[in-house]
Amino acid sequence: MAETRIRFGILGCANIARKVSRAMLLSPNTTISAIGSRSLEKATVFASENHFPESTKVYGSYDAVLDDPDVDAVYVPLPTSLHVRWAVLAAEKKKHVLLEKPVALNVGDLDIILEACESSGVQFMDATMWMHHPRTEKMKQVISDEQRFGQLKSVHSTFTFLADANFLRNNIRVNPNLDSLGALGDAGWYAIRAILWAHDYELPKTVNAFPDPEYNDSRVILSCGASLNWKNNAKIATFYCSFHSNLCADINVLGTKGNFRVHDFVIPFDEKVGSFYGVDNSRWGELQRGCGPEPSEFKIATDLPQEVLMVREFGRLVEGIRSGEAKPEKKWPVISRKTQVIIDAVAASIKNGFVPVEVVY
Amino acid sequence: MAETRIRFGILGCANIARKVSRAMLLSPNTTISAIGSRSLEKATVFASENHFPESTKVYGSYDAVLDDPDVDAVYVPLPTSLHVRWAVLAAEKKKHVLLEKPVALNVGDLDIILEACESSGVQFMDATMWMHHPRTEKMKQVISDEQRFGQLKSVHSTFTFLADANFLRNNIRVNPNLDSLGALGDAGWYAIRAILWAHDYELPKTVNAFPDPEYNDSRVILSCGASLNWKNNAKIATFYCSFHSNLCADINVLGTKGNFRVHDFVIPFDEKVGSFYGVDNSRWGELQRGCGPEPSEFKIATDLPQEVLMVREFGRLVEGIRSGEAKPEKKWPVISRKTQVIIDAVAASIKNGFVPVEVVY
Repeated sequence: MAETRIRFGILGCANIARKVSRAMLLSPNTTISAIGSRSLEKATVFASENHFPESTKVYGSYDAVLDDPDVDAVYVPLPTSLHVRWAVLAAEKKKHVLLEKPVALNVGDLDIILEACESSGVQFMDATMWMHHPRTEKMKQVISDEQRFGQLKSVHSTFTFLADANFLRNNIRVNPNLDSLGALGDAGWYAIRAILWAHDYELPKTVNAFPDPEYNDSRVILSCGASLNWKNNAKIATFYCSFHSNLCADINVLGTKGNFRVHDFVIPFDEKVGSFYGVDNSRWGELQRGCGPEPSEFKIATDLPQEVLMVREFGRLVEGIRSGEAKPEKKWPVISRKTQVIIDAVAASIKNGFVPVEVVY
Repeated sequence: MAETRIRFGILGCANIARKVSRAMLLSPNTTISAIGSRSLEKATVFASENHFPESTKVYGSYDAVLDDPDVDAVYVPLPTSLHVRWAVLAAEKKKHVLLEKPVALNVGDLDIILEACESSGVQFMDATMWMHHPRTEKMKQVISDEQRFGQLKSVHSTFTFLADANFLRNNIRVNPNLDSLGALGDAGWYAIRAILWAHDYELPKTVNAFPDPEYNDSRVILSCGASLNWKNNAKIATFYCSFHSNLCADINVLGTKGNFRVHDFVIPFDEKVGSFYGVDNSRWGELQRGCGPEPSEFKIATDLPQEVLMVREFGRLVEGIRSGEAKPEKKWPVISRKTQVIIDAVAASIKNGFVPVEVVY
């Protein structure tokens, strides 16, 4: 069995790579065969601290990982400004690409990456973990239940956390040369993805950013939000993302007959079980002295944490391609691109003075 | 004690008057002394069905109620288009005015009412019940806790319910001649009030309606929403209101250090106890494998339902005026006017093509 595992190479020693590399070791169909950093020492320490297999090759460059024939796929948690260079090179070297979000600084850059993956026949997936939690599928079933949920009318999503002084000074996500999209690209990625997910990835017609985002001194966005409009069934969605508010990861979804809420959609409070709260056909009581029913909690258990499920699914797709049984799954690059398209539209709306921006795919 | 109770006269037999008249009978400092309807028969049935005191005088006109010297205060649940006429007349006859929401079709009309009340020295209050639930005060303490909640950053409020075919055809709230503000004036009143309440009634600088509200054939709004912007500390608020979605009454309030949610703010699920859910200083766990703490439920019990507390507070203010110990409490008309100002701004933004509208008090 071991020899058939998909062998990951990891580019860089980002903090998030600690969590994702653990997932690679927990997933039954993947392993880690190489890690590269500009600093060999840093990579060596990282591999040791994160209990990489003895056999893992440790390199002092990213190129060496891409040149290693024992690497089937790369995980790229590098700063966004480096994604085009390294994801394209990886694809050209026939490595499948698991790319951290935001996948690119704009959709033009993303297209370069996706074209490279397509022409090399490698799988592309962004590392949005919550997509792979079984709760996500369960919540989608709720939305799809015409009888109990009715028509989708409104979505409000929030992803915020309170960055500390060190983050706000030093983190790559607030550095205009590394992650110029700031909170929009980072926290906003999830909030926007949640809206698209709820709408079965039907893109809105227009996006209108809310006035007065917060910026740091380098004009990197620290908080912002927008409304998304479909011009269809009066559907509306709004989101808010921030590095300046208490950790909050909410989706509120409202249908004609039902609604539900989740309060930890990005990373569940508990990695073994995810909850959401739903209700349908709510009614006033006699004399409007009360109403009901109260929302019910739905608990979805998972043996494997969502990041392991993500890695396992990526591995499964790569296996299929390697064995010649399947082509790369197009769903994932399409979802990434749609998310990026909305991020670009929000950024354009902000840049142009909070005007409505037409969404062009 | 009985002879000192504030004696209410009720104008009309609106459905909501059933609930509020019950409150007048439950409140220790009020009673009902008269009801008037254009139909004497309807008023007679209403008084009987709602267990009004034997002594209640039943009239076949609103004027007769206003001319009754045994009436201290009137409750006006008439269609909004009739508010100016009847609230002004009531004030001129020195009756204190408890007015249903929306208080007016626009702030110009409201000012006529408020000026009449002020020049007659009578108390004005709108009948927004949830303002009087002890939970509301408790939630305000949460927002005000600088140490645990930090600075207010974002509020999202929702008030929706699914109107049935009969409502959508016949209810006064969808009739352009009676309640031309539709869902914006009705459900939106609560959602907007919630936002202002959370901001200590500091008015936003601009309001921008979301595109594509739903309308009925008479161009009465059935669903809409907007963003409100303070141009101060990057605070943003959004709301959504509708007659076309499942019953949902949510406020989501986000601060730098804490956040809380309430899911039944307009009318609690249970009239004896109201809950909300709060958390502060939320953190990622090790390796971001989870986060916490989970939000806690706060349960606020109340012996008297919120509508009784509203009537009792109104009665207390009227007592103070009657005894010469107090002047009319200005807080309530100010809050009503601010709410109306925002409704007008949202309506103007919709009318002008979803552009930002400056808020002028």
